Amino acid sequence: MPFDPSSLRFDTNGLIPAIAQDAETGEVLMMAWMNAQSVARTLETGRVTYWSRSRQSFWVKGESSGHLQHLVEMRVDCDRDCLLVLVRQEGPACHTNRRSCFYTAIRDGAETEIMKPML
Amino acid sequence: MPFDPSSLRFDTNGLIPAIAQDAETGEVLMMAWMNAQSVARTLETGRVTYWSRSRQSFWVKGESSGHLQHLVEMRVDCDRDCLLVLVRQEGPACHTNRRSCFYTAIRDGAETEIMKPML
Repeated sequence: MPFDPSSLRFDTNGLIPAIAQDAETGEVLMMAWMNAQSVARTLETGRVTYWSRSRQSFWVKGESSGHLQHLVEMRVDCDRDCLLVLVRQEGPACHTNRRSCFYTAIRDGAETEIMKPML
Repeated sequence: MPFDPSSLRFDTNGLIPAIAQDAETGEVLMMAWMNAQSVARTLETGRVTYWSRSRQSFWVKGESSGHLQHLVEMRVDCDRDCLLVLVRQEGPACHTNRRSCFYTAIRDGAETEIMKPML
């Protein structure tokens, strides 16, 4: 069946969560939001393109930092209300310069930093 | 720093997205939502507990199906508005009986099923 981005289930703001996962290592890198057009642009360009809720604009991941996310494969979940994007990530995915945004673990009831910024 | 679930950034409905990942294989299994109390319950009980938006009630994953998610580790992202839960999943995570909810890939512009239901 041909894929139509408008067939996804978007929230009341027209957005769908997209989880970025390193296609090679399986590491979950980040979660951000897409609208129908950023889904289409991601598929067309091969560069993962989110919708920035704070700036209310398209956000080609890495466009300013150089830390591009190259699309390897997009997947849709059973409810069609969440996306998984397998990517090849250049450098850090996180704005803190860490490889992944999920660098804080809860261990024994306390927050523990488990990842250092990349050099 | 001691972890306080109320320190997370919840959306206007008091919810935060939680990505469940197989702690052993790295496979992303599903995404669902938690409120502050389901975060606390997950940490207390070791059984991943979401908030069901459709039923407006706590949802101990697998409580009725037997396909429990045992918490291995909870992680918080840089913006504190998304959780990653590393889990040991019993059986399928998806209500369609598939291991993961992300069984539909977009390949050459078409939807392709890449995973069969478990026996």
